[in-house]
Amino acid sequence: MVQQAATESVTSTLQRASLVLDAFDGGQRLNLSQVVLRTGLPRSSVHRILEKLVALKWVHRQGNEYGLGVRMIELGSTAVHQDPLRRAALPSLQWLHRTTGCIVHLCVLDGTDVIYLEKIGGEMAAAVPSRVGGRMPAYSSAVGKALLASHDCALRKAPELAAVRDTGIAYEREESLRGFGCVASPIGPPGGREAVAAVSVCAPIGRVLSGDRLRIPVREAAAQIWREIQDARSGVVRRPAVGRHPALA
Amino acid sequence: MVQQAATESVTSTLQRASLVLDAFDGGQRLNLSQVVLRTGLPRSSVHRILEKLVALKWVHRQGNEYGLGVRMIELGSTAVHQDPLRRAALPSLQWLHRTTGCIVHLCVLDGTDVIYLEKIGGEMAAAVPSRVGGRMPAYSSAVGKALLASHDCALRKAPELAAVRDTGIAYEREESLRGFGCVASPIGPPGGREAVAAVSVCAPIGRVLSGDRLRIPVREAAAQIWREIQDARSGVVRRPAVGRHPALA
Repeated sequence: MVQQAATESVTSTLQRASLVLDAFDGGQRLNLSQVVLRTGLPRSSVHRILEKLVALKWVHRQGNEYGLGVRMIELGSTAVHQDPLRRAALPSLQWLHRTTGCIVHLCVLDGTDVIYLEKIGGEMAAAVPSRVGGRMPAYSSAVGKALLASHDCALRKAPELAAVRDTGIAYEREESLRGFGCVASPIGPPGGREAVAAVSVCAPIGRVLSGDRLRIPVREAAAQIWREIQDARSGVVRRPAVGRHPALA
Repeated sequence: MVQQAATESVTSTLQRASLVLDAFDGGQRLNLSQVVLRTGLPRSSVHRILEKLVALKWVHRQGNEYGLGVRMIELGSTAVHQDPLRRAALPSLQWLHRTTGCIVHLCVLDGTDVIYLEKIGGEMAAAVPSRVGGRMPAYSSAVGKALLASHDCALRKAPELAAVRDTGIAYEREESLRGFGCVASPIGPPGGREAVAAVSVCAPIGRVLSGDRLRIPVREAAAQIWREIQDARSGVVRRPAVGRHPALA
Protein backbone atom coordinates (compact mmCIF):
# COMPACT_ATOMS: atom_id res chain seq x y z
CA MET A 1 0.00 0.00 0.00
CA VAL A 2 2.81 2.43 0.88
CA GLN A 3 4.57 1.44 -2.34
CA GLN A 4 1.42 2.06 -4.37
CA ALA A 5 0.79 5.43 -2.73
CA ALA A 6 4.39 6.49 -3.45
CA THR A 7 4.02 5.47 -7.11
CA GLU A 8 0.77 7.40 -7.45
CA SER A 9 2.26 10.51 -5.88
CA VAL A 10 5.28 10.42 -8.23
CA THR A 11 3.00 9.84 -11.23
CA SER A 12 0.67 12.61 -10.33
CA THR A 13 3.35 15.24 -9.64
CA LEU A 14 5.43 14.36 -12.69
CA GLN A 15 2.38 14.16 -14.95
CA ARG A 16 1.24 17.57 -13.80
CA ALA A 17 4.75 19.00 -14.26
CA SER A 18 4.78 17.44 -17.72
CA LEU A 19 1.41 19.04 -18.55
CA VAL A 20 2.75 22.40 -17.42
CA LEU A 21 5.84 22.04 -19.64
CA ASP A 22 3.64 20.86 -22.56
CA ALA A 23 1.74 24.15 -22.28
CA PHE A 24 4.82 25.87 -23.75
CA ASP A 25 4.87 23.67 -26.88
CA GLY A 26 3.48 26.45 -29.03
CA GLY A 27 6.67 28.42 -28.48
CA GLN A 28 5.04 31.41 -26.76
CA ARG A 29 5.76 32.63 -23.27
CA LEU A 30 2.69 32.42 -21.02
CA ASN A 31 1.31 34.02 -17.88
CA LEU A 32 -0.14 31.97 -15.01
CA SER A 33 -3.75 32.19 -16.28
CA GLN A 34 -2.71 30.96 -19.73
CA VAL A 35 -0.91 27.95 -18.24
CA VAL A 36 -3.98 27.19 -16.09
CA LEU A 37 -6.18 27.36 -19.20
CA ARG A 38 -3.90 25.12 -21.29
CA THR A 39 -3.34 22.47 -18.61
CA GLY A 40 -6.81 22.34 -17.07
CA LEU A 41 -5.12 22.04 -13.65
CA PRO A 42 -6.14 24.05 -10.55
CA ARG A 43 -4.54 27.48 -10.37
CA SER A 44 -2.90 26.80 -6.99
CA SER A 45 -1.37 23.58 -8.31
CA VAL A 46 -0.05 25.27 -11.47
CA HIS A 47 1.44 28.10 -9.44
CA ARG A 48 3.16 25.66 -7.06
CA ILE A 49 4.58 23.60 -9.91
CA LEU A 50 5.74 26.66 -11.87
CA GLU A 51 7.58 28.03 -8.84
CA LYS A 52 9.37 24.71 -8.36
CA LEU A 53 10.23 24.51 -12.05
CA VAL A 54 11.62 28.07 -11.86
CA ALA A 55 13.81 27.02 -8.90
CA LEU A 56 15.11 24.09 -11.00
CA LYS A 57 15.68 26.46 -14.00
CA TRP A 58 13.43 24.27 -16.13
CA VAL A 59 11.19 27.31 -16.42
CA HIS A 60 12.23 30.97 -16.58
CA ARG A 61 10.09 33.78 -15.22
CA GLN A 62 10.33 37.36 -16.38
CA GLY A 63 7.77 39.67 -14.79
CA ASN A 64 4.46 37.84 -15.08
CA GLU A 65 5.53 35.66 -17.97
CA TYR A 66 6.91 32.15 -17.93
CA GLY A 67 8.88 30.31 -20.60
CA LEU A 68 11.06 27.21 -20.79
CA GLY A 69 14.36 27.75 -18.99
CA VAL A 70 18.04 27.32 -19.57
CA ARG A 71 18.16 23.90 -17.90
CA MET A 72 15.74 22.60 -20.56
CA ILE A 73 18.10 23.88 -23.25
CA GLU A 74 20.95 22.07 -21.54
CA LEU A 75 19.08 18.78 -21.04
CA GLY A 76 17.81 18.89 -24.62
CA SER A 77 21.32 19.40 -25.95
CA THR A 78 22.65 16.51 -23.84
CA ALA A 79 19.76 14.33 -25.06
CA VAL A 80 20.60 15.05 -28.70
CA HIS A 81 24.30 14.36 -28.32
CA GLN A 82 23.75 11.23 -26.23
CA ASP A 83 21.16 9.68 -28.54
CA PRO A 84 22.62 6.32 -29.66
CA LEU A 85 20.68 6.32 -32.93
CA ARG A 86 21.95 9.78 -33.92
CA ARG A 87 25.46 8.87 -32.83
CA ALA A 88 25.47 5.71 -34.96
CA ALA A 89 24.03 7.63 -37.92
CA LEU A 90 26.25 10.72 -37.86
CA PRO A 91 29.14 9.56 -40.10
CA SER A 92 26.69 8.34 -42.76
CA LEU A 93 24.64 11.54 -42.55
CA GLN A 94 27.79 13.60 -43.09
CA TRP A 95 28.79 11.34 -45.99
CA LEU A 96 25.31 11.79 -47.52
CA HIS A 97 25.55 15.59 -47.20
CA ARG A 98 29.03 15.66 -48.78
CA THR A 99 27.96 13.31 -51.59
CA THR A 100 24.69 15.01 -52.54
CA GLY A 101 25.19 18.59 -51.32
CA CYS A 102 21.60 18.40 -50.00
CA ILE A 103 20.15 19.14 -46.58
CA VAL A 104 20.13 15.82 -44.69
CA HIS A 105 17.60 14.90 -41.98
CA LEU A 106 17.42 12.02 -39.50
CA CYS A 107 13.97 11.47 -37.96
CA VAL A 108 12.06 9.10 -35.68
CA LEU A 109 8.33 8.44 -35.51
CA ASP A 110 6.37 9.61 -32.44
CA GLY A 111 2.71 8.70 -32.81
CA THR A 112 1.60 10.24 -36.10
CA ASP A 113 4.42 12.81 -36.08
CA VAL A 114 8.10 12.73 -36.88
CA ILE A 115 10.71 14.31 -34.64
CA TYR A 116 13.98 15.57 -36.15
CA LEU A 117 17.11 14.17 -34.47
CA GLU A 118 19.65 15.73 -36.86
CA LYS A 119 19.85 18.24 -39.65
CA ILE A 120 23.00 18.79 -41.71
CA GLY A 121 22.77 21.45 -44.34
CA GLY A 122 25.74 23.82 -44.39
CA GLU A 123 24.81 27.24 -45.74
CA MET A 124 21.65 25.86 -47.42
CA ALA A 125 20.13 24.75 -44.08
CA ALA A 126 18.51 28.12 -43.36
CA ALA A 127 16.31 27.75 -46.48
CA VAL A 128 14.35 24.90 -44.85
CA PRO A 129 12.71 25.69 -41.48
CA SER A 130 13.14 22.21 -39.98
CA ARG A 131 15.14 22.04 -36.75
CA VAL A 132 16.57 19.40 -34.43
CA GLY A 133 13.87 18.66 -31.84
CA GLY A 134 11.14 19.92 -34.17
CA ARG A 135 7.93 17.96 -34.79
CA MET A 136 6.00 17.55 -38.09
CA PRO A 137 2.94 15.53 -39.14
CA ALA A 138 4.44 12.33 -40.57
CA TYR A 139 2.25 12.19 -43.65
CA SER A 140 3.45 15.54 -45.01
CA SER A 141 7.14 14.60 -45.04
CA ALA A 142 9.23 12.05 -46.93
CA VAL A 143 10.81 10.75 -43.72
CA GLY A 144 7.33 10.38 -42.23
CA LYS A 145 6.04 8.40 -45.21
CA ALA A 146 9.12 6.16 -45.07
CA LEU A 147 8.34 5.45 -41.40
CA LEU A 148 4.55 5.10 -41.74
CA ALA A 149 5.00 2.59 -44.58
CA SER A 150 6.92 0.25 -42.30
CA HIS A 151 4.54 0.41 -39.33
CA ASP A 152 1.03 -0.86 -38.74
CA CYS A 153 -1.11 2.24 -39.02
CA ALA A 154 -4.39 3.29 -40.57
CA LEU A 155 -2.57 4.71 -43.60
CA ARG A 156 -0.43 1.64 -44.20
CA LYS A 157 -2.50 0.41 -47.17
CA ALA A 158 -2.50 3.77 -49.01
CA PRO A 159 -1.04 3.28 -52.55
CA GLU A 160 1.75 5.82 -51.93
CA LEU A 161 2.92 3.89 -48.87
CA ALA A 162 2.73 0.54 -50.71
CA ALA A 163 5.10 2.05 -53.29
CA VAL A 164 7.44 3.08 -50.48
CA ARG A 165 7.56 -0.54 -49.27
CA ASP A 166 8.28 -1.80 -52.80
CA THR A 167 11.10 0.65 -53.54
CA GLY A 168 12.49 1.56 -50.09
CA ILE A 169 12.10 5.21 -51.12
CA ALA A 170 9.55 7.88 -50.13
CA TYR A 171 9.08 11.24 -51.82
CA GLU A 172 7.75 14.58 -50.71
CA ARG A 173 7.17 17.17 -53.42
CA GLU A 174 6.54 20.71 -52.18
CA GLU A 175 4.06 19.39 -49.60
CA SER A 176 5.85 21.09 -46.70
CA LEU A 177 7.72 23.92 -48.40
CA ARG A 178 7.24 25.53 -51.80
CA GLY A 179 10.22 25.01 -54.09
CA PHE A 180 11.64 22.10 -52.10
CA GLY A 181 11.24 18.33 -52.12
CA CYS A 182 12.72 15.40 -50.21
CA VAL A 183 13.75 11.82 -50.88
CA ALA A 184 13.75 9.50 -47.85
CA SER A 185 14.52 5.91 -46.96
CA PRO A 186 13.55 3.93 -43.85
CA ILE A 187 16.30 2.68 -41.52
CA GLY A 188 15.56 -0.84 -40.33
CA PRO A 189 15.81 -4.55 -40.98
CA PRO A 190 15.45 -5.75 -44.59
CA GLY A 191 11.85 -6.32 -45.66
CA GLY A 192 10.64 -2.81 -44.87
CA ARG A 193 9.12 -3.61 -41.46
CA GLU A 194 9.75 -1.96 -38.10
CA ALA A 195 11.98 0.86 -39.24
CA VAL A 196 13.57 2.63 -36.26
CA ALA A 197 14.20 5.90 -38.08
CA ALA A 198 14.38 7.44 -41.54
CA VAL A 199 16.94 9.50 -43.40
CA SER A 200 16.18 12.06 -46.11
CA VAL A 201 17.81 14.56 -48.43
CA CYS A 202 15.99 17.81 -49.20
CA ALA A 203 16.77 19.84 -52.29
CA PRO A 204 15.21 22.33 -54.70
CA ILE A 205 12.22 20.55 -56.26
CA GLY A 206 13.78 20.44 -59.74
CA ARG A 207 16.51 18.15 -58.47
CA VAL A 208 14.04 15.88 -56.70
CA LEU A 209 11.84 15.56 -59.81
CA SER A 210 14.67 15.16 -62.30
CA GLY A 211 15.16 11.43 -61.91
CA ASP A 212 16.68 8.86 -59.69
CA ARG A 213 20.14 10.22 -58.85
CA LEU A 214 19.33 10.91 -55.20
CA ARG A 215 17.72 7.52 -54.53
CA ILE A 216 20.93 5.52 -54.56
CA PRO A 217 22.94 7.48 -51.95
CA VAL A 218 19.87 7.87 -49.70
CA ARG A 219 19.18 4.12 -49.75
CA GLU A 220 22.88 3.39 -49.23
CA ALA A 221 23.07 5.75 -46.25
CA ALA A 222 19.97 4.14 -44.70
CA ALA A 223 21.45 0.66 -45.10
CA GLN A 224 24.78 1.79 -43.67
CA ILE A 225 23.12 3.47 -40.67
CA TRP A 226 21.20 0.26 -39.97
CA ARG A 227 24.52 -1.68 -39.99
CA GLU A 228 26.07 0.92 -37.65
CA ILE A 229 23.14 0.57 -35.26
CA GLN A 230 23.54 -3.22 -35.25
CA ASP A 231 27.29 -2.85 -34.67
CA ALA A 232 26.76 -0.36 -31.84
CA ARG A 233 24.32 -2.74 -30.16
CA SER A 234 26.72 -5.65 -30.43
CA GLY A 235 29.80 -3.60 -29.49
CA VAL A 236 31.67 -3.86 -32.83
CA VAL A 237 34.05 -0.95 -33.52
CA ARG A 238 34.78 -0.22 -37.20
CA ARG A 239 37.86 1.59 -38.41
CA PRO A 240 36.95 5.16 -39.33
CA ALA A 241 37.13 5.78 -43.06
CA VAL A 242 38.39 9.22 -44.01
CA GLY A 243 36.71 10.78 -47.02
CA ARG A 244 35.04 7.56 -48.12
CA HIS A 245 31.74 6.04 -47.20
CA PRO A 246 32.21 3.78 -44.17
CA ALA A 247 30.53 0.97 -46.12
CA LEU A 248 33.45 1.01 -48.59
CA ALA A 249 36.19 1.06 -45.94
CA MET B 1 -0.85 22.55 6.69
CA VAL B 2 -2.37 20.81 3.69
CA GLN B 3 -0.92 23.53 1.44
CA GLN B 4 2.53 23.08 2.98
CA ALA B 5 2.38 19.29 2.65
CA ALA B 6 1.41 19.63 -1.03
CA THR B 7 4.32 22.02 -1.66
CA GLU B 8 6.76 19.67 0.03
CA SER B 9 5.53 16.68 -1.96
CA VAL B 10 5.89 18.57 -5.27
CA THR B 11 9.35 19.79 -4.28
CA SER B 12 10.52 16.41 -3.25
CA THR B 13 9.27 14.54 -6.33
CA LEU B 14 10.49 17.17 -8.80
CA GLN B 15 13.83 17.53 -7.04
CA ARG B 16 14.35 13.79 -7.18
CA ALA B 17 13.31 13.69 -10.85
CA SER B 18 15.72 16.55 -11.47
CA LEU B 19 18.54 14.65 -9.71
CA VAL B 20 17.81 11.61 -11.87
CA LEU B 21 17.96 13.71 -15.07
CA ASP B 22 21.16 15.42 -13.82
CA ALA B 23 22.76 11.98 -13.61
CA PHE B 24 22.85 11.93 -17.41
CA ASP B 25 24.79 15.21 -17.67
CA GLY B 26 28.01 13.40 -18.53
CA GLY B 27 26.45 12.30 -21.80
CA GLN B 28 26.65 8.56 -21.14
CA ARG B 29 23.75 6.16 -20.96
CA LEU B 30 23.42 4.55 -17.52
CA ASN B 31 21.95 1.44 -15.94
CA LEU B 32 19.81 1.56 -12.79
CA SER B 33 22.75 1.00 -10.41
CA GLN B 34 24.73 3.82 -11.99
CA VAL B 35 21.80 6.24 -11.61
CA VAL B 36 21.41 5.13 -7.94
CA LEU B 37 25.13 5.78 -7.38
CA ARG B 38 25.08 9.22 -9.03
CA THR B 39 21.92 10.48 -7.36
CA GLY B 40 22.38 9.00 -3.88
CA LEU B 41 18.64 8.21 -3.87
CA PRO B 42 17.15 4.86 -2.75
CA ARG B 43 17.08 2.25 -5.51
CA SER B 44 13.29 1.78 -5.31
CA SER B 45 12.76 5.53 -5.63
CA VAL B 46 15.12 5.81 -8.62
CA HIS B 47 13.43 2.86 -10.34
CA ARG B 48 9.98 4.36 -9.79
CA ILE B 49 11.04 7.78 -11.11
CA LEU B 50 12.85 6.30 -14.12
CA GLU B 51 9.80 4.28 -15.11
CA LYS B 52 7.61 7.39 -14.93
CA LEU B 53 10.16 9.41 -16.92
CA VAL B 54 10.21 6.62 -19.55
CA ALA B 55 6.40 6.81 -19.79
CA LEU B 56 6.68 10.58 -20.35
CA LYS B 57 9.46 9.99 -22.98
CA TRP B 58 11.78 12.24 -20.96
CA VAL B 59 13.97 9.15 -20.57
CA HIS B 60 14.51 6.36 -23.08
CA ARG B 61 15.23 2.78 -22.03
CA GLN B 62 17.00 0.26 -24.23
CA GLY B 63 17.61 -3.08 -22.56
CA ASN B 64 19.06 -2.25 -19.14
CA GLU B 65 20.30 1.17 -20.15
CA TYR B 66 18.65 4.53 -19.74
CA GLY B 67 19.36 7.81 -21.51
CA LEU B 68 17.60 11.12 -22.03
CA GLY B 69 14.57 10.72 -24.30
CA VAL B 70 13.06 12.32 -27.35
CA ARG B 71 10.72 14.57 -25.32
CA MET B 72 13.79 16.22 -23.76
CA ILE B 73 15.14 16.89 -27.26
CA GLU B 74 11.82 18.46 -28.17
CA LEU B 75 11.49 20.58 -25.00
CA GLY B 76 15.11 21.72 -25.34
CA SER B 77 14.54 22.77 -28.92
CA THR B 78 11.38 24.69 -27.98
CA ALA B 79 13.26 26.34 -25.10
CA VAL B 80 16.03 27.52 -27.46
CA HIS B 81 13.65 28.92 -30.05
CA GLN B 82 11.40 30.55 -27.45
CA ASP B 83 14.19 32.22 -25.51
CA PRO B 84 13.49 35.99 -25.64
CA LEU B 85 17.16 36.91 -25.26
CA ARG B 86 18.22 34.69 -28.18
CA ARG B 87 15.31 35.92 -30.27
CA ALA B 88 16.22 39.58 -29.68
CA ALA B 89 19.89 38.83 -30.43
CA LEU B 90 19.52 36.72 -33.58
CA PRO B 91 19.58 39.47 -36.27
CA SER B 92 22.69 41.05 -34.71
CA LEU B 93 24.40 37.65 -34.35
CA GLN B 94 23.79 36.94 -38.03
CA TRP B 95 25.06 40.41 -38.95
CA LEU B 96 28.20 39.79 -36.85
CA HIS B 97 28.81 36.45 -38.57
CA ARG B 98 28.37 37.98 -42.04
CA THR B 99 30.59 40.96 -41.19
CA THR B 100 33.49 39.05 -39.60
CA GLY B 101 33.18 35.56 -41.11
CA CYS B 102 33.86 34.22 -37.60
CA ILE B 103 31.99 31.71 -35.46
CA VAL B 104 29.57 33.73 -33.30
CA HIS B 105 28.40 32.69 -29.82
CA LEU B 106 25.68 34.02 -27.52
CA CYS B 107 26.04 32.92 -23.87
CA VAL B 108 24.53 33.47 -20.43
CA LEU B 109 26.10 32.98 -17.02
CA ASP B 110 24.90 30.12 -14.79
CA GLY B 111 26.82 30.12 -11.51
CA THR B 112 30.49 29.93 -12.51
CA ASP B 113 29.71 28.46 -15.93
CA VAL B 114 28.48 29.85 -19.21
CA ILE B 115 25.73 28.19 -21.21
CA TYR B 116 25.63 28.61 -24.99
CA LEU B 117 22.30 29.91 -26.33
CA GLU B 118 23.37 30.26 -29.97
CA LYS B 119 26.22 29.38 -32.28
CA ILE B 120 26.45 30.62 -35.85
CA GLY B 121 29.42 29.41 -37.80
CA GLY B 122 28.56 28.15 -41.27
CA GLU B 123 31.05 25.58 -42.50
CA MET B 124 33.68 26.68 -39.93
CA ALA B 125 31.42 25.79 -36.97
CA ALA B 126 32.54 22.15 -36.86
CA ALA B 127 36.13 23.25 -36.04
CA VAL B 128 35.04 24.47 -32.58
CA PRO B 129 33.32 21.90 -30.34
CA SER B 130 30.95 24.36 -28.61
CA ARG B 131 27.25 23.62 -28.99
CA VAL B 132 23.93 25.24 -28.15
CA GLY B 133 22.97 24.05 -24.66
CA GLY B 134 26.60 23.26 -23.84
CA ARG B 135 28.24 24.38 -20.58
CA MET B 136 31.82 25.66 -20.02
CA PRO B 137 33.69 27.08 -17.02
CA ALA B 138 33.25 30.84 -17.40
CA TYR B 139 36.86 31.74 -16.65
CA SER B 140 38.25 29.78 -19.60
CA SER B 141 36.15 31.55 -22.23
CA ALA B 142 35.97 35.12 -23.54
CA VAL B 143 32.18 35.26 -23.09
CA GLY B 144 32.62 34.00 -19.53
CA LYS B 145 35.22 36.68 -18.70
CA ALA B 146 32.94 39.34 -20.20
CA LEU B 147 30.15 38.15 -17.89
CA LEU B 148 32.26 37.61 -14.75
CA ALA B 149 33.70 41.13 -15.08
CA SER B 150 30.25 42.65 -14.78
CA HIS B 151 29.06 40.60 -11.80
CA ASP B 152 30.02 40.50 -8.16
CA CYS B 153 32.16 37.41 -7.84
CA ALA B 154 35.37 36.33 -6.18
CA LEU B 155 37.30 36.91 -9.42
CA ARG B 156 35.90 40.38 -10.07
CA LYS B 157 39.07 42.18 -8.92
CA ALA B 158 41.45 40.11 -11.07
CA PRO B 159 43.47 42.44 -13.37
CA GLU B 160 42.22 40.71 -16.52
CA LEU B 161 38.60 41.35 -15.52
CA ALA B 162 39.34 44.99 -14.59
CA ALA B 163 40.65 45.43 -18.15
CA VAL B 164 37.42 43.94 -19.47
CA ARG B 165 35.43 46.55 -17.54
CA ASP B 166 37.62 49.36 -18.91
CA THR B 167 37.44 48.31 -22.55
CA GLY B 168 34.15 46.40 -22.81
CA ILE B 169 36.13 43.60 -24.47
CA ALA B 170 37.32 40.20 -23.18
CA TYR B 171 39.83 37.92 -24.87
CA GLU B 172 40.47 34.21 -24.82
CA ARG B 173 43.67 33.03 -26.48
CA GLU B 174 43.91 29.27 -27.06
CA GLU B 175 42.70 28.62 -23.48
CA SER B 176 39.87 26.35 -24.62
CA LEU B 177 41.06 25.16 -28.02
CA ARG B 178 44.51 25.14 -29.57
CA GLY B 179 44.74 27.36 -32.62
CA PHE B 180 41.62 29.36 -31.79
CA GLY B 181 40.86 32.50 -29.84
CA CYS B 182 37.76 34.59 -29.08
CA VAL B 183 36.83 38.23 -28.61
CA ALA B 184 33.74 38.90 -26.49
CA SER B 185 31.69 41.81 -25.21
CA PRO B 186 29.10 41.90 -22.40
CA ILE B 187 25.47 42.66 -23.26
CA GLY B 188 23.95 44.96 -20.68
CA PRO B 189 23.39 48.51 -19.50
CA PRO B 190 26.21 51.05 -20.01
CA GLY B 191 28.79 51.07 -17.21
CA GLY B 192 29.66 47.38 -17.44
CA ARG B 193 27.42 46.17 -14.60
CA GLU B 194 24.77 43.44 -14.58
CA ALA B 195 25.33 42.11 -18.08
CA VAL B 196 22.54 39.69 -19.04
CA ALA B 197 24.57 37.83 -21.67
CA ALA B 198 27.72 38.07 -23.77
CA VAL B 199 28.47 37.78 -27.46
CA SER B 200 31.75 36.56 -28.96
CA VAL B 201 33.48 35.85 -32.24
CA CYS B 202 35.90 32.92 -32.44
CA ALA B 203 38.57 32.73 -35.10
CA PRO B 204 41.99 31.23 -35.80
CA ILE B 205 44.32 32.66 -33.14
CA GLY B 206 46.36 34.68 -35.66
CA ARG B 207 43.33 36.79 -36.45
CA VAL B 208 42.54 37.36 -32.77
CA LEU B 209 46.14 38.40 -31.98
CA SER B 210 46.64 40.58 -35.05
CA GLY B 211 45.06 43.73 -33.68
CA ASP B 212 41.80 45.36 -32.98
CA ARG B 213 39.70 44.73 -36.10
CA LEU B 214 37.30 42.33 -34.37
CA ARG B 215 36.67 44.55 -31.34
CA ILE B 216 34.55 47.14 -33.12
CA PRO B 217 31.90 44.85 -34.66
CA VAL B 218 31.72 42.72 -31.48
CA ARG B 219 31.13 45.77 -29.31
CA GLU B 220 28.64 47.14 -31.82
CA ALA B 221 26.71 43.85 -31.91
CA ALA B 222 26.60 43.75 -28.08
CA ALA B 223 25.26 47.31 -27.92
CA GLN B 224 22.68 46.60 -30.62
CA ILE B 225 21.51 43.38 -28.87
CA TRP B 226 21.07 45.34 -25.64
CA ARG B 227 18.89 47.86 -27.53
CA GLU B 228 16.87 45.02 -29.07
CA ILE B 229 16.30 43.51 -25.62
CA GLN B 230 15.10 46.86 -24.30
CA ASP B 231 12.80 47.27 -27.32
CA ALA B 232 11.41 43.73 -26.92
CA ARG B 233 10.66 44.42 -23.26
CA SER B 234 8.88 47.68 -24.05
CA GLY B 235 7.08 46.32 -27.13
CA VAL B 236 8.80 48.47 -29.79
CA VAL B 237 8.93 46.88 -33.26
CA ARG B 238 11.75 48.02 -35.55
CA ARG B 239 11.63 47.77 -39.33
CA PRO B 240 13.82 44.85 -40.44
CA ALA B 241 16.96 45.96 -42.27
CA VAL B 242 17.96 43.71 -45.14
CA GLY B 243 21.69 43.25 -45.58
CA ARG B 244 22.57 46.07 -43.22
CA HIS B 245 23.08 46.16 -39.51
CA PRO B 246 19.76 46.92 -37.77
CA ALA B 247 21.49 49.77 -35.95
CA LEU B 248 21.99 51.52 -39.30
CA ALA B 249 18.42 51.02 -40.51
